[in-house]
Amino acid sequence: MVNGIERPLDVLNNAKGKEVLVQLKNNKQMVGTLLAFDIHINIVLDNAKEIVDNESKRSVGLTFLRGDTIIFISPASVAKQ
Amino acid sequence: MVNGIERPLDVLNNAKGKEVLVQLKNNKQMVGTLLAFDIHINIVLDNAKEIVDNESKRSVGLTFLRGDTIIFISPASVAKQ
Amino acid sequence: MVNGIERPLDVLNNAKGKEVLVQLKNNKQMVGTLLAFDIHINIVLDNAKEIVDNESKRSVGLTFLRGDTIIFISPASVAKQ
Amino acid sequence: MVNGIERPLDVLNNAKGKEVLVQLKNNKQMVGTLLAFDIHINIVLDNAKEIVDNESKRSVGLTFLRGDTIIFISPASVAKQ
Amino acid sequence: MVNGIERPLDVLNNAKGKEVLVQLKNNKQMVGTLLAFDIHINIVLDNAKEIVDNESKRSVGLTFLRGDTIIFISPASVAKQ
Amino acid sequence: MVNGIERPLDVLNNAKGKEVLVQLKNNKQMVGTLLAFDIHINIVLDNAKEIVDNESKRSVGLTFLRGDTIIFISPASVAKQ
Amino acid sequence: MVNGIERPLDVLNNAKGKEVLVQLKNNKQMVGTLLAFDIHINIVLDNAKEIVDNESKRSVGLTFLRGDTIIFISPASVAKQ
Repeated sequence: MVNGIERPLDVLNNAKGKEVLVQLKNNKQMVGTLLAFDIHINIVLDNAKEIVDNESKRSVGLTFLRGDTIIFISPASVAKQ
Repeated sequence: MVNGIERPLDVLNNAKGKEVLVQLKNNKQMVGTLLAFDIHINIVLDNAKEIVDNESKRSVGLTFLRGDTIIFISPASVAKQ
Repeated sequence: MVNGIERPLDVLNNAKGKEVLVQLKNNKQMVGTLLAFDIHINIVLDNAKEIVDNESKRSVGLTFLRGDTIIFISPASVAKQ
Repeated sequence: MVNGIERPLDVLNNAKGKEVLVQLKNNKQMVGTLLAFDIHINIVLDNAKEIVDNESKRSVGLTFLRGDTIIFISPASVAKQ
Repeated sequence: MVNGIERPLDVLNNAKGKEVLVQLKNNKQMVGTLLAFDIHINIVLDNAKEIVDNESKRSVGLTFLRGDTIIFISPASVAKQ
Repeated sequence: MVNGIERPLDVLNNAKGKEVLVQLKNNKQMVGTLLAFDIHINIVLDNAKEIVDNESKRSVGLTFLRGDTIIFISPASVAKQ
Repeated sequence: MVNGIERPLDVLNNAKGKEVLVQLKNNKQMVGTLLAFDIHINIVLDNAKEIVDNESKRSVGLTFLRGDTIIFISPASVAKQ
């Protein structure tokens, strides 16, 4: 086990308050601080920014993201952007 | 916690009566005053306007939006448009 | 609250018997008089007309619309078309 | 109320035994006599014909249509085709 | 009523052991003998053949088809192909 | 009845341990030995190979396939490839 | 039976702690160490890398992948990449 991860949602729980990279189905990405999530993988990001072609495109601040548009959420990869 | 947000829907609850930016799956956006939402993320906007390519295109007034067409809802970003 | 709207479906209930604009996922629109709806947002329009590129294209009369093809329903915007 | 329609499925119930126009998600249409439907909006048409670009293209006779491919069902519009 | 059809699945029940035409969402068709179906409209065809542009393209024999890829199933139309 | 097939899943049960052809929604195919399946039509293939344009393209060995990406599963057609 | 696989999820259970290849619906692939999964096939990969056209493109580290974007998961095929 890595950091006590037994179920997929443990990763999101560990990432609360940290920056995450979110890959969306419409080929866009968002980065922001993960504030909350639920079992549908609806999430809330603070200081969210849309990223297109690895470039920051628009700041949308506090944002609610619907779970069914999300491909992956990566807490570790923001610094590497 | 930011503004007491524990669950994703708390963001929508805090945004009632305020202007929100709604990104739809068909590449369009809407701005309007959030009046109501439910657990399917069906929402009602008042004074809703469709936005295409960052330009206001059509006023549709009071509007019911089906949750499954929504990518994100951002209460903070309207002023920055 | 606007017109006593607490839940999203209140907007549809208030719009019964009135003209509504319905945006569909296939880039088409319909206008017609809202007769009925259910929790799946299946709706019935009377005197329904298909609209393509803001032009009335085909009268389809009394019509049953499946909820999962609907993006938004706007009771207020028909007059502005 | 038009013809005692209180719920969306009342329209389909009234249309049993009559010709209906069915708009499908793949841009095709079917006309035929509505024989049966269920709550998933699975329907059965008799003497069904596929219509492409307003032209009758293929007779498929008695046909079972899966509900999730249907956009709308219009009992009144067949005569106007 | 045609052949005692009250519910949509009655058509499939009557078609067991007979040839059916199946229209799939990927613009392909299959013909074959209907052996079995369930409430998800998962079906089994025997002696199934893929049809592309009205031409038989590949024999796939006994085949399990997932319901959510099916647009329509037509028992009567095979002879007319 | 063919081989005692009463329900669609009987075909998959009979095919356990045998080679099957799996048509996926992304226009790719896989062949492999069917080891297991569940009611969501999630399946496991052993010695799986991806097929593109009727050509074997990549061996992926033991593979878990998510049911909702599957169009059809054909136990009989592998030999005819 | 291969390695005691009776149900599809047994393959994922056996693959915990091992490298897997994950094919996504957006034509991308990911490789990484499988840490956790649930019945929705939501998974967590450690040291995840995105692969486009068989080339490693971006390291995203610890990553949560939503199940409904996954086509297949292959534990055996990483070494053959």
